[in-house]
Amino acid sequence: MTHSSGKVKSFLDASDIEASGAIPTTNSTTLEIHKVSVPPRITTLQCLKQRLSEFFFPDDPLQQFRNKSFFRKVVLGLQYVFPILEWGPQYNLKLLRSDAISGLTIASLAIPQGISYAKLANLPPIIGLYSSFVPPLIYSVLGSSRDLAVGPVSIASLVMGSMLREVVSPDTDSLLYLQLAFTATFFAGVFQASLGFLRLGFIVDFLSKPTLTGFMGGAAVIVSLQQFKGLLGIVHFTTQMGIIPVMQSVFGKTQEWSWQTILMGFSFLLFLLVARHISSRNPKFFWVSVAAPLTSVILSTILSFIFKVPEHGISTIGHLQKGVNPPSLNMLSFKGSHLSLSVKTGIVCGILALTEGIAVGRTFASLNNYQIDGNKEMMAIGLMNMAGSCTSCYVTTGSFSRSAVNYNAGCKTAVSNVILASAVLFTMLLLMPLFYYTPNAILSAIIIAAVVGLIDIQGALKLWKVDIFDFLACMSAFFGVLLISVQMGLAIAVGVSLFKILIHVTRPNIVNMGIVPGTHNYKSLAHYRDATGVPSFLILGVESAIYFTNSMYLQERILRWVREEEERVLKLNESTIRCIVLDMTAVTGIDTSGMEALLELKKKLNRRSLEFVLANPVGEVTKKLFHSGTWEHFGSQGVFMSVREAIVGTSDKFQF
Amino acid sequence: MTHSSGKVKSFLDASDIEASGAIPTTNSTTLEIHKVSVPPRITTLQCLKQRLSEFFFPDDPLQQFRNKSFFRKVVLGLQYVFPILEWGPQYNLKLLRSDAISGLTIASLAIPQGISYAKLANLPPIIGLYSSFVPPLIYSVLGSSRDLAVGPVSIASLVMGSMLREVVSPDTDSLLYLQLAFTATFFAGVFQASLGFLRLGFIVDFLSKPTLTGFMGGAAVIVSLQQFKGLLGIVHFTTQMGIIPVMQSVFGKTQEWSWQTILMGFSFLLFLLVARHISSRNPKFFWVSVAAPLTSVILSTILSFIFKVPEHGISTIGHLQKGVNPPSLNMLSFKGSHLSLSVKTGIVCGILALTEGIAVGRTFASLNNYQIDGNKEMMAIGLMNMAGSCTSCYVTTGSFSRSAVNYNAGCKTAVSNVILASAVLFTMLLLMPLFYYTPNAILSAIIIAAVVGLIDIQGALKLWKVDIFDFLACMSAFFGVLLISVQMGLAIAVGVSLFKILIHVTRPNIVNMGIVPGTHNYKSLAHYRDATGVPSFLILGVESAIYFTNSMYLQERILRWVREEEERVLKLNESTIRCIVLDMTAVTGIDTSGMEALLELKKKLNRRSLEFVLANPVGEVTKKLFHSGTWEHFGSQGVFMSVREAIVGTSDKFQF
Repeated sequence: MTHSSGKVKSFLDASDIEASGAIPTTNSTTLEIHKVSVPPRITTLQCLKQRLSEFFFPDDPLQQFRNKSFFRKVVLGLQYVFPILEWGPQYNLKLLRSDAISGLTIASLAIPQGISYAKLANLPPIIGLYSSFVPPLIYSVLGSSRDLAVGPVSIASLVMGSMLREVVSPDTDSLLYLQLAFTATFFAGVFQASLGFLRLGFIVDFLSKPTLTGFMGGAAVIVSLQQFKGLLGIVHFTTQMGIIPVMQSVFGKTQEWSWQTILMGFSFLLFLLVARHISSRNPKFFWVSVAAPLTSVILSTILSFIFKVPEHGISTIGHLQKGVNPPSLNMLSFKGSHLSLSVKTGIVCGILALTEGIAVGRTFASLNNYQIDGNKEMMAIGLMNMAGSCTSCYVTTGSFSRSAVNYNAGCKTAVSNVILASAVLFTMLLLMPLFYYTPNAILSAIIIAAVVGLIDIQGALKLWKVDIFDFLACMSAFFGVLLISVQMGLAIAVGVSLFKILIHVTRPNIVNMGIVPGTHNYKSLAHYRDATGVPSFLILGVESAIYFTNSMYLQERILRWVREEEERVLKLNESTIRCIVLDMTAVTGIDTSGMEALLELKKKLNRRSLEFVLANPVGEVTKKLFHSGTWEHFGSQGVFMSVREAIVGTSDKFQF
Repeated sequence: MTHSSGKVKSFLDASDIEASGAIPTTNSTTLEIHKVSVPPRITTLQCLKQRLSEFFFPDDPLQQFRNKSFFRKVVLGLQYVFPILEWGPQYNLKLLRSDAISGLTIASLAIPQGISYAKLANLPPIIGLYSSFVPPLIYSVLGSSRDLAVGPVSIASLVMGSMLREVVSPDTDSLLYLQLAFTATFFAGVFQASLGFLRLGFIVDFLSKPTLTGFMGGAAVIVSLQQFKGLLGIVHFTTQMGIIPVMQSVFGKTQEWSWQTILMGFSFLLFLLVARHISSRNPKFFWVSVAAPLTSVILSTILSFIFKVPEHGISTIGHLQKGVNPPSLNMLSFKGSHLSLSVKTGIVCGILALTEGIAVGRTFASLNNYQIDGNKEMMAIGLMNMAGSCTSCYVTTGSFSRSAVNYNAGCKTAVSNVILASAVLFTMLLLMPLFYYTPNAILSAIIIAAVVGLIDIQGALKLWKVDIFDFLACMSAFFGVLLISVQMGLAIAVGVSLFKILIHVTRPNIVNMGIVPGTHNYKSLAHYRDATGVPSFLILGVESAIYFTNSMYLQERILRWVREEEERVLKLNESTIRCIVLDMTAVTGIDTSGMEALLELKKKLNRRSLEFVLANPVGEVTKKLFHSGTWEHFGSQGVFMSVREAIVGTSDKFQF
């Protein structure tokens, strides 16, 4: 036990007078100084093993297999790979009824959307139906989400279309284009499945929500603008994605505008938007917006048939081949000059599809209070796309809009996907001729009505209020997509997100701390306005790991704090600074450069007759300071368990 | 004032019995719960302004101009741009004597090294001398370091040589090669000066020391291997940098080995290495290794002259043109197909040169106890290279080896650079014919002896012990340079360094905390072995900012902690977990995804009848929680100032 003396003691006493009833005012600064313990040493290899297992298996996936019999392990293993084995045996008619209703509901949405999204990817409309048939069937066997409605989605379709069209024209080189689309789908599947298998699923988390908000907003604007081709009936339209060429095509070709198309397109667009609005105002009427697309298709097709619109210059879908998915394994091409294009497109579409699929899966799992395993889900989606690429499907994933409908319509299991697939099969076998008269303008209207919901202005405004950096990330993604290209927008979005993290570690916050009256808590003076500094001490808290990116900055910034504090103290005629306490509580890591910076700082401060002590290093940091020898330079009286002990200990030692 | 009751109270009492004398054992858990204050609100724009000023002007560079008269401001401004005006007026003969000695000492090193390094960059040897003349003069006017010895350096020379040679052959296209080298130097200068001017100097800190250790080690090995061409007298040598083609050239061309060259080269290499060894063992003999290169050049030239070695197949430098630097402004070319190559080479060499120059400047400034301003120094080095590119110089910077010699020889100001330049001038005007007989093998020996010191095996071993990730970064840079290419090695080095930071934020440490007996400190149970958990509570500390990269992981990992703790408690028959306290002390930042994760977690835990409260959020985080509305969801009884208050407050509320 030691006793502090002089100014600091009287200060601490005075501060303690105001303290809570728990602490009497007498001998309150008599404080035992505790040794800072060093966590037990482990070897470098053990440390590596620990870190890797925490990195790749944070969810401890083998936990359920522990202490089970061999037979049970096999059953659990099979159930792990095929979740259908888990819920299948308990399946009953009551569940089927719910699933059938929701399955048919999403089918009414999936069929028009499938045809539209295929057009977004510059693919024949029938590919959209194929892609709504095989993938849902596979997902129902492998997938673990009960609410996911699988099929083509707008963002992945858009990106695939725009990336492939940059190199190959879908009009003049349609066979090559189709081959590339299937090959890209195959690579997307391989990439997705590998991410899951290698347990690198966290990569999708690198697309932060704000950047996705910006990205999707930008993509929605681009997609909507592109739809003017169909809505206005323009024949010669730009193949580029940028906002400028599209606007030029729209307003430069006014002679191609067809008033019949415009009238029909905009009427149905209005109808769809009103339906959307009704549903969003009152969730009970969710079926209004669900029924709207199919209603539009049916109505417009009937109108088109009655008025024989193809003769009046309104373009329609035309002849669609009947029948189920033809095999397309022979269309996959793994050589030639376009291989890198398919790989690149596959990876970009794959990660976008995963991001949407996983986010949707997690959202509805959380609503229904069950857990889904991200890595496992990625393998399911990946395998589904690999299988899809061999059966004339392009990239598919869980669609946000259709999954929401699925959930609202009361789906219970993945059987709703089977019902969806059956409805699509029925359509493909029997109803294809009916689409002959469906005007293309309706498909454009359906796409616009679907993507408009992706523009989240409220969300962007909230970001502006809460986090300026998130807002900037969002805006750069938005304008990146709009003004440069979809891929660049995505790259910018990821870059900005990661840059934000690096900035946090490059320019960490340093706070000047004082004691909060009535407590033993030392807090930032800027945060707690009633906290007061301790005379002769400068207590600084570093709010970041100390790494090579900030070690130089921290040195210079701390020296500036000392200089400014000395000037302030001189001006106010307070007692001179004698000791700098560095509160390491929030220093969550340190590397070799960081430790050198601490030593350098100690040397510089000591040269100016200032003490420099550390308070409360966390376990990881303590270990490193100890094993690198930095600890010895500070000595046992240079590292304390808490700021309070550092102050008492230091004032004891130097008698100030 | 509130009173806790039941189990927790008796636990806290028991714990306090052991507490320091400061806290009596009676009514010790009577603890006032303090309100967590929210920092005053500032507008988004103010916040942005604050952040930007902290980002770009952390050193408050205008501080010295404040409250000064206009005239004084002008003088200070001029002194800021031309540091020579600061120290120039006080310059005296005594300082000159010290500077002259050190200037001549570094000249004796700079002349042979200049010629050698120019060969490393595949440039004519004379360019090495030109580059040791103009840049030191400019630096002495603009630079603020007193110890920096300016001139060509090995790493930048190597990288420039290897990047340019990949596209243009220095042998067949020598004029174009020279043009590209000067243009790259110009761009390097522009890049360096802009980094300084835009206050982006922190970018050089992104090359962490461990990665630089690996990078320089790899480069040194590559450079040394390349020197076998000169040392063995091989005429037809590969132009590639990789380890495999070089080894093939060495052992595939044994018929070209010349025993005379080998004898001479290896003898002098041995001499140089022994001299290096003597100096490194005893710093007093630093001049031994300093004098060795010039001695080698003189001795070997005399031997070569006596024995007429060029007639015996030993290649020599040959004819060198007399005279000072010719202007080379007309050689800069800003168009044509090679522009992107010069820009790329310029940026890579520029950043490498900066890294070395700034690190050297800081090291010696710290030894001599003065500060240098990184951004200002970058502008000086950048302007020096821009001027150099117009006067037949290639990339120069502060050299580590020569600056160390300069420091040891007792330099006082940048005048030592002027002396160096004068000595080089004298050589260029009068002594050039003497180099005619200097064997190329000696230059190779000088390069090897210089770069061998860059291989820091001790440093790498220390990394292995202290920080496994730093070691991995170091090794990837080393093997990247060795097996792929110098540029790739550099890219890998930066990538690995940044990846390490991202990992820290992707998989943050979460610790289970307990109370340290005799204190009110709550610490990690894994770190403080004597700490004990609090019954009915699970106290978790998150050691990282909560960002989009880890928000999903944190949710799942915390739920796993809860699950494991519940299993443990059940097994040991302890009291069930009732409340999870999240210690936010080390959560230095949060974004919108992070806040959503907290809410989601609260929802999930509450659904399982578990309380979830936050303790001690830091200022930034408090502000965001408050303004985003997350605060309201937790309520005033859901956020506490410290873990202790959280425990007392929660047990009061729920009477457990």
